[in-house]
Amino acid sequence: MLHFTALVTCLALLFYFFTSFNVGKARAAFGVKAPAISGNPDFERVFRVQMNTLEWLPFFLPALWLFAIYVSDAVAAALGLVWIVGRILYMIGYSKAASKRGLGFGIQASAAILLWLGAFGAIAWKLVHA
Amino acid sequence: MLHFTALVTCLALLFYFFTSFNVGKARAAFGVKAPAISGNPDFERVFRVQMNTLEWLPFFLPALWLFAIYVSDAVAAALGLVWIVGRILYMIGYSKAASKRGLGFGIQASAAILLWLGAFGAIAWKLVHA
Amino acid sequence: MLHFTALVTCLALLFYFFTSFNVGKARAAFGVKAPAISGNPDFERVFRVQMNTLEWLPFFLPALWLFAIYVSDAVAAALGLVWIVGRILYMIGYSKAASKRGLGFGIQASAAILLWLGAFGAIAWKLVHA
Repeated sequence: MLHFTALVTCLALLFYFFTSFNVGKARAAFGVKAPAISGNPDFERVFRVQMNTLEWLPFFLPALWLFAIYVSDAVAAALGLVWIVGRILYMIGYSKAASKRGLGFGIQASAAILLWLGAFGAIAWKLVHA
Repeated sequence: MLHFTALVTCLALLFYFFTSFNVGKARAAFGVKAPAISGNPDFERVFRVQMNTLEWLPFFLPALWLFAIYVSDAVAAALGLVWIVGRILYMIGYSKAASKRGLGFGIQASAAILLWLGAFGAIAWKLVHA
Repeated sequence: MLHFTALVTCLALLFYFFTSFNVGKARAAFGVKAPAISGNPDFERVFRVQMNTLEWLPFFLPALWLFAIYVSDAVAAALGLVWIVGRILYMIGYSKAASKRGLGFGIQASAAILLWLGAFGAIAWKLVHA
């Protein structure tokens, strides 16, 4: 059982839920009625924070779990926490201006890529030495 | 093996596939050519049904499986079925008018949040009592 | 341990990462500044390649793994490779013109649907004969 990775997965889902909730609030605040997803740049930035988190989840979650299974539960969970911190910084920066989203983006991308590299390397090693 | 949760996962994927298929049909019916994703409100509502289902899948599926692993296969599958029913009501309501999507949305959100709460609680309990 | 499926999952994530990377490049090349996601058809086609891959991942990955668990690791991995090849052809075709995306789309859809059918059939069989 990979308890630490399971817990960090729940925290990542909680953060994602929060970004989705913000889109609903921004629809009301900026008067962008469903089904529209454009028309107001302030709304669009909040919407893009959710969308970008959504875009990264199918990369992050499988890489996180393959890393946990093939390398280490604790290290996977630690990198997963770094990913969440990066996403929070990305959200805070992007909500101010599109140009301020770089730092958080880089942190979360680095964490996700490390998870992928570790998983890929360990799987390839197992296959070669099986 | 978590057979019930596996089966409900297949059913959720089938429903999602159906919403994607509807977008293709709506492109033809309302004359919205790829790569455009806006321009006709009737098309946009069908598109948003698929997109909203896509937005919830990375929350629903991990919460469903963590609940199944840490709590119960049968209860996870039952809540998963409620989620699918909520999504179907959401689709039917949204296809009529944006204002009629509330009930289905609330049902599927409640089911997904219950799955998350159960999984999070059980994982935290295991970590504290490990 | 399902090493072949794990490896193919990494390769699918790598391809998806590549399509996301292309969106960033296309933003610069066609002058579409974040948070905008429309305004230039050449950008929109590159964006839709990423989005369509994202749309299929939550269908493909669970179907792939359920097939691997319930049917066969090697066959799941082989169908997963076909899916990736289809997605590459789709990307190449769509980057030229929206009308040239059909072949790759059909190949990846067929592979994903076969994975779903195999998984669904095997799970239903297990439940009936349990």
